[in-house]
Amino acid sequence: MVAKKPINTRTKAPTIRDVARVAKVSIGTASKALNANGRLSTETREKVKRVAAEIGYRPNDLAQSLHRSKSMTVGVITNDSFGRFSFPIFEALEERLAAEGIAVFMCNATDDPERERQHLDQLLGKRIDGLVVTARRTDNRAPIGRFAHGLPVIYVFTHADEDDAHSLLPDDEGGAYLATTHLASLGRKHIVHVTGPERFEAVRLRLKGYRRALKDNGLDEQVHHGPWSEVWGREAAAKLFSKKTQKPDALFCGNDQIARGAAEGLRDLGIQVPRDVAIVGFDNWEVITQAARPPLTSIDMNLKALGAEAGERLIAMIGGQKIRGARRMPCSLVIRQSCGSEMRNLSEV
Amino acid sequence: MVAKKPINTRTKAPTIRDVARVAKVSIGTASKALNANGRLSTETREKVKRVAAEIGYRPNDLAQSLHRSKSMTVGVITNDSFGRFSFPIFEALEERLAAEGIAVFMCNATDDPERERQHLDQLLGKRIDGLVVTARRTDNRAPIGRFAHGLPVIYVFTHADEDDAHSLLPDDEGGAYLATTHLASLGRKHIVHVTGPERFEAVRLRLKGYRRALKDNGLDEQVHHGPWSEVWGREAAAKLFSKKTQKPDALFCGNDQIARGAAEGLRDLGIQVPRDVAIVGFDNWEVITQAARPPLTSIDMNLKALGAEAGERLIAMIGGQKIRGARRMPCSLVIRQSCGSEMRNLSEV
Repeated sequence: MVAKKPINTRTKAPTIRDVARVAKVSIGTASKALNANGRLSTETREKVKRVAAEIGYRPNDLAQSLHRSKSMTVGVITNDSFGRFSFPIFEALEERLAAEGIAVFMCNATDDPERERQHLDQLLGKRIDGLVVTARRTDNRAPIGRFAHGLPVIYVFTHADEDDAHSLLPDDEGGAYLATTHLASLGRKHIVHVTGPERFEAVRLRLKGYRRALKDNGLDEQVHHGPWSEVWGREAAAKLFSKKTQKPDALFCGNDQIARGAAEGLRDLGIQVPRDVAIVGFDNWEVITQAARPPLTSIDMNLKALGAEAGERLIAMIGGQKIRGARRMPCSLVIRQSCGSEMRNLSEV
Repeated sequence: MVAKKPINTRTKAPTIRDVARVAKVSIGTASKALNANGRLSTETREKVKRVAAEIGYRPNDLAQSLHRSKSMTVGVITNDSFGRFSFPIFEALEERLAAEGIAVFMCNATDDPERERQHLDQLLGKRIDGLVVTARRTDNRAPIGRFAHGLPVIYVFTHADEDDAHSLLPDDEGGAYLATTHLASLGRKHIVHVTGPERFEAVRLRLKGYRRALKDNGLDEQVHHGPWSEVWGREAAAKLFSKKTQKPDALFCGNDQIARGAAEGLRDLGIQVPRDVAIVGFDNWEVITQAARPPLTSIDMNLKALGAEAGERLIAMIGGQKIRGARRMPCSLVIRQSCGSEMRNLSEV
């Protein structure tokens, strides 16, 4: 293994030995001065600090963390190889932890349990102070807890089948309720739900929110499942409007790709969005919502807020706080042209 | 700061002390047995190893890395907050390094030099063995080298203005040459280049490849710059075909979003793709290429191969090898329906 060869080509970073030599003090004195402990004259202490700054000495975190039994590191294991959902979460999480001086090891297990186990072993060997697990959400994931020696673990955008696991998720049901209620409030009476595969927990929760909103507004449901794609959205639009039955006047779609496909399908048929049919998507993925004709109203899962909150909670857990159970964070409605109301943002109450 | 409180709620991981106690040997003997050094009977060595496995003892990487002066960690600093380009690179890089037992610290500097500097300080404090810098490519980035104490640094998908910096990039010029030559080989005579903003190095390089291919085929150029969006692609298509001048019979677009927009713009005008106008995009971003009508032929930058190669090279550099200068990795042409040739993949020669 190449990486185990000695590194002889590298300029060595200055050590406490160098600080002591240049400052003409003992290593013990240099250490006391830099760690602000022991009795020393102010003069000596200042001299050592000045020398350390001049020669670019940095305290060795490894030695410090052995001493404190804290590594000031956290591991993130993701299974979302696409990265569209995990990246904004990770970005905000990393920013929050970096502010506390905590660095993040990131591992991608790509849904391979063997690789996940190896990553976890490696992270435990590095004595991480906490662990974040994030994933695609087809269903509950296997808990990681029993391998982690009581390490603080937080599941983000996924949850585990384990009694005291702590997970942080978007409120899919609330988001769907918000979208459907918005369409109903604009006077739409035949709101059809075109969504993704039923095996996704998010699909089941969004369906629940849609049904609750219809019930609250005295409207009937119509649900169609298919893949998470624009092609499915186009097909669904074509199918819905070729039937002799009651035509929908609104579509609430399970994601933005389905919504954009539906908008194009209606365009092909000469049906106007939003005049004839209003559309609301889910994800607020700007690449899709902005390019659609018309630009799509959508539900935003506020993934950056989710990531920042996960960082906050993990820091508290590392500090000894016990946090348990699943917590759902609110979604928001981002209004563009496809739903027929004016441009404004509403937060879920 | 919460994170500095002592952790008193955490189950302690077994230490070498526990191994010694259970195996009924001294700590020195346990250490010799587990580190495979010193003289011990085979029986004792085996007993210690068995006990270590039974109680779940893991050697402490922190202690080991202090001893070896190797941390078995690498830092990645990214400035690509969107993650679409950096994520596949990171994924393959991390996989390659994990295979060598090297863990990856990932930091997002989001184009803020102050944050980048803080991240670097933090990484240096953790005694990383090497550093990967990746970024959006508007232009050369400020070199990081002079702060890094001779640490092996590799720039991926970006490069630095520094004599001995090593960078790994996709061959944008070669990719554009491949796309344009392909269109010319299909008999297209009026190939227009609709691309992104000129301030991007990638735009300038792709333009160069397009020009070289046209020259080799005795064709004339026509170039239009605009934003990296579908809206710009639609606008460009509308503009090109409203003119009284020579109509294009092919478009080579600077990215897939522009290409998809152009395809939709032509569709709106009743112009058939690829019969009347052939289109080739750039990035091979499947979300866009597969949803376009027709699905788009595109240039793939092989970002996963780039990430794996970066890992390989960084491992060699950590092992003491000197690697310098910029290296461009080949792109490939992925053929779908928009260019009018049959389905097949060609690699750049």
